[in-house]
Amino acid sequence: MFSSAFRRYLPVLDWGRNYNKDSFSNDMIAAVIVTIMLIPQSLAYALLAGLPPEMGLYASILPIILYAIFGTSRALAVGPVAVVSLMTAASIGQIAESGTAGYAIAALTLAMLSGGILLLMGVFRLGFLANFLSHPVIAGFITASGVLIASSQLKHILGVDAKGHTLVEIVISIGSHLGEVNWVTLVIGVCATAFLFWVRKGLKPLLLGMGAKPRVADVITKAGPVAAVVVTTAVVWLLGLEQSGVKIVGAVPQSLPPLTMPSFSSELLGSLFVPALLISVIGFVESVSVAQTLAAKKRQRIDPDQELIGLGAANLGAAFTGGFPVTGGFSRSVVNFDAGAETPAAGAYTAVGLAIAAVSLTPLIFFLPKATLAATIIVAVLSLVNFSILKHSWNYSKSDFTAVSATILLTLGFGVETGVSAGVLLSIGLYLYKTSRPHIAEVGLVPGTEHFRNINRHEVLTKPEMLTIRIDESLYFANARFLEDYIYDRAVGDEALQHVVLQCSAVNEVDLSALESLEAINHRLEDAGIKLHLSEVKGPVMDRLKRSHFLEDLTGQVFLSQFHAQEELAPLTSSPVEKASA
Amino acid sequence: MFSSAFRRYLPVLDWGRNYNKDSFSNDMIAAVIVTIMLIPQSLAYALLAGLPPEMGLYASILPIILYAIFGTSRALAVGPVAVVSLMTAASIGQIAESGTAGYAIAALTLAMLSGGILLLMGVFRLGFLANFLSHPVIAGFITASGVLIASSQLKHILGVDAKGHTLVEIVISIGSHLGEVNWVTLVIGVCATAFLFWVRKGLKPLLLGMGAKPRVADVITKAGPVAAVVVTTAVVWLLGLEQSGVKIVGAVPQSLPPLTMPSFSSELLGSLFVPALLISVIGFVESVSVAQTLAAKKRQRIDPDQELIGLGAANLGAAFTGGFPVTGGFSRSVVNFDAGAETPAAGAYTAVGLAIAAVSLTPLIFFLPKATLAATIIVAVLSLVNFSILKHSWNYSKSDFTAVSATILLTLGFGVETGVSAGVLLSIGLYLYKTSRPHIAEVGLVPGTEHFRNINRHEVLTKPEMLTIRIDESLYFANARFLEDYIYDRAVGDEALQHVVLQCSAVNEVDLSALESLEAINHRLEDAGIKLHLSEVKGPVMDRLKRSHFLEDLTGQVFLSQFHAQEELAPLTSSPVEKASA
Repeated sequence: MFSSAFRRYLPVLDWGRNYNKDSFSNDMIAAVIVTIMLIPQSLAYALLAGLPPEMGLYASILPIILYAIFGTSRALAVGPVAVVSLMTAASIGQIAESGTAGYAIAALTLAMLSGGILLLMGVFRLGFLANFLSHPVIAGFITASGVLIASSQLKHILGVDAKGHTLVEIVISIGSHLGEVNWVTLVIGVCATAFLFWVRKGLKPLLLGMGAKPRVADVITKAGPVAAVVVTTAVVWLLGLEQSGVKIVGAVPQSLPPLTMPSFSSELLGSLFVPALLISVIGFVESVSVAQTLAAKKRQRIDPDQELIGLGAANLGAAFTGGFPVTGGFSRSVVNFDAGAETPAAGAYTAVGLAIAAVSLTPLIFFLPKATLAATIIVAVLSLVNFSILKHSWNYSKSDFTAVSATILLTLGFGVETGVSAGVLLSIGLYLYKTSRPHIAEVGLVPGTEHFRNINRHEVLTKPEMLTIRIDESLYFANARFLEDYIYDRAVGDEALQHVVLQCSAVNEVDLSALESLEAINHRLEDAGIKLHLSEVKGPVMDRLKRSHFLEDLTGQVFLSQFHAQEELAPLTSSPVEKASA
Repeated sequence: MFSSAFRRYLPVLDWGRNYNKDSFSNDMIAAVIVTIMLIPQSLAYALLAGLPPEMGLYASILPIILYAIFGTSRALAVGPVAVVSLMTAASIGQIAESGTAGYAIAALTLAMLSGGILLLMGVFRLGFLANFLSHPVIAGFITASGVLIASSQLKHILGVDAKGHTLVEIVISIGSHLGEVNWVTLVIGVCATAFLFWVRKGLKPLLLGMGAKPRVADVITKAGPVAAVVVTTAVVWLLGLEQSGVKIVGAVPQSLPPLTMPSFSSELLGSLFVPALLISVIGFVESVSVAQTLAAKKRQRIDPDQELIGLGAANLGAAFTGGFPVTGGFSRSVVNFDAGAETPAAGAYTAVGLAIAAVSLTPLIFFLPKATLAATIIVAVLSLVNFSILKHSWNYSKSDFTAVSATILLTLGFGVETGVSAGVLLSIGLYLYKTSRPHIAEVGLVPGTEHFRNINRHEVLTKPEMLTIRIDESLYFANARFLEDYIYDRAVGDEALQHVVLQCSAVNEVDLSALESLEAINHRLEDAGIKLHLSEVKGPVMDRLKRSHFLEDLTGQVFLSQFHAQEELAPLTSSPVEKASA
């Protein structure tokens, strides 16, 4: 028996106890399919990160096992993913030149930092922080980074040397090298890209039309990149195209993941801290979204805080076994799930498959052209690009649109880090701005009911002696003075007015600043001979007001409902009920 | 005739047209009283800012005239104030040594930057930004900076050399110089401080008791610092105490404010930008609070955005006439108001009075001991120190208490800039955290009414087939997933459940992220055979939902009121009404 605290941190204890032969065979089948898919993908993402191809394999072996032990998702497949690889390239590209030992060590260090940050966030249960990445910001940065990643791979398709981490840099750099295009590479790259697009869009309907079972059609479709790898490698090898300047992967060590040591230099740690934080948060958000989607399909639950620990362990594993930052990937997890993986053990079997590949298959990819890997990446990421979020958000809400478009533009122009940071700050800023100028409605009684509605939207009954204001926002420091100004503007100088009622049905909090404002309003209205009343105050707000002097100083009363207020106050006023038309 | 845009920027056109003999004589009387009070105060705040005493006078002359032209408050008196002077010393102390020409130029540059920032904020109508300084943060920093300022003046009372911009630095520095205390200075300092405290607390009751009119008693009391200056200056001069090491003001140029040139070095501007921004915002908040308090007493209004322009002009004026950052001060404005000032012209007359003082009276203060000025500052700022905000906020709200105590501790420990910045970020962070975990209540019908209340607080009627959830917060990105989790946890696995109703009376917004969550909840519940309904959706929220596909996809209905929902849905369910006890 294990204590529950122990079990919280080791979800493997839960599913491990019920593991049986059926689970084993389902997991094995899924593992074989995922392994076949992951070999080209891992190599490709290493290329995207600017690292030697074997590091992509290494990054998928120990991390996947550690996640199986500590993670809560049954289907999540952890390893290098496109966006994180792009961010890795952008952040360590500032520090060292791609291809040097320093660059590889910076990648290990980034993985270690990211792992440490994720672990700490998990232990302190800070998973909720990811909620501050709003949907528009995530959608915007995924689309923009898809464009950024695809454009960064163009140089491999064209066979030119180009640099840059932003769209402008990349376009200018490629433009200045257009004279050096390697036409053989271009043919291979275009053919591979076209083939992969066709596999993705056209092959499955074709297979289904030919009577294949959907699951078989799926598996064949997912093996498309492997076919592209095998064919283009064979073509380059047989025709000796490396002599024509086609860049190939070349010699890759035949080895299990090596033990590696990240750097502990405080200078390096300092300069990588902010990128590591962003990579951690973005990787976590991507991973949790995938895990939640898949868990929902099987009515399972995942625990976001424990996910942080699983991903943290995976990244620490990557740091010490020749990898680079990893997270739960969308496509690989979906394949794993669709292939019937039942438990995280499927991940462990995938790791064994990749280890066998690292030891035995690497000589076979000597002639693999980099253009094929680039084609794999381009086709994968372009499926993520979806500018319709711009139209969607424009229709729904201008402030969401502002956040999306700023995130897209800044990500394209200045990279993922700037784009996402600005997007988050902008969404928070816009939210605060909106709450600082809340919707405030003057309301009146809907005839024949107990309901009160906006006098500008409905035909309602009002009296000149009574002003009822519904505040559609919690009252806190940012809008306290706004309310004061609104009431003074409306009430001061209105000779007929005797009672002001604040309908608080939408006021979920009154903080100390707002309390001061309410006190000021009360005194100011008292000076003008007007009484202040409250209605429909929520329990938690009332509890708090009772701990202050406000209720004792209040010139009027607190009514349970606005209708009670109307019933009590209306007889005190002299004028007949007046009708305000909408 | 002037256009309204013209009039907006020049409030002087409003009151100037109705200026008459009565206004003139009232303004003149107020000006004389304020001038008498301002002479020692201006000298003292220059000392606090680490600047030569005449700069305090210069900072009160042109700025006061420019504010009279551009500002909207009838009674605000602009000039050097304690907190801004302290912040000036702290920020330019990083750049140059007090007493050097570079230090004075940095002060001019800080005033210019601050003036520019205020002007721009006014033109772009950013006055609302000041609302993000919450009451707890303002109360905390005023108390802490009062302590900081008083402790920074101790060295003048003790007659020692000490340095430091934080409480710890100041205490350590004074402690290490305790052996060098100048006893004559100490006697002067203690006597002046004690006298000024007595004037503030004991003199007015005494005068009133002797039959003096309240206004006369007020004026005499406000002249206390002048009496202290005159007496201690005379004592030092007559006894030759400067020979005993009593530090005196010494030679002050006899001159009108000189034309001065701030620096335009981009390095200096860069390093002063953040301090200037904070000085601007804090100065603005202090000034607007005073102006609003005084305007409210006469049923007048001030325009915060135009106040920014008035204060911006005043600071630019200070920058080019030998001053340093200024703002509307509390004590001087109250004196101006109490003395009967009717229009901003009173400020202009005060400026003339100070100009006369700068030209003619400066030789008289040659022997004025710095200890007297320090006593003036200490007595003035200690009246602002009020730690009761700690107890008050502790009782009312723990998050307000957190913001107050963090602001106080960080201001004392690291200075006003750090304290206020941290306080603002912390208040915003705590607010966001609270809204990210909103209060969500399961509600039921209060028997015999149309009201629905929390099942944990009231005896209400519920049915096992129906779950009604009231969300006490706007739905936005930070809490969208929280709501999803809450509903899944509560609804998934509840076999009896057929209907979930979200009561949206407190939902003031549904942003795009929350819309996605609502769509996900709808689909997820649909999979489990449960219908999702909404009730009491506000007009603006409904308008927006209509622009999305959500209402078409919704499995249930949108009810005008929760009672309607109950009436429609209850007959569809089979079980008898169940009673949930509180």
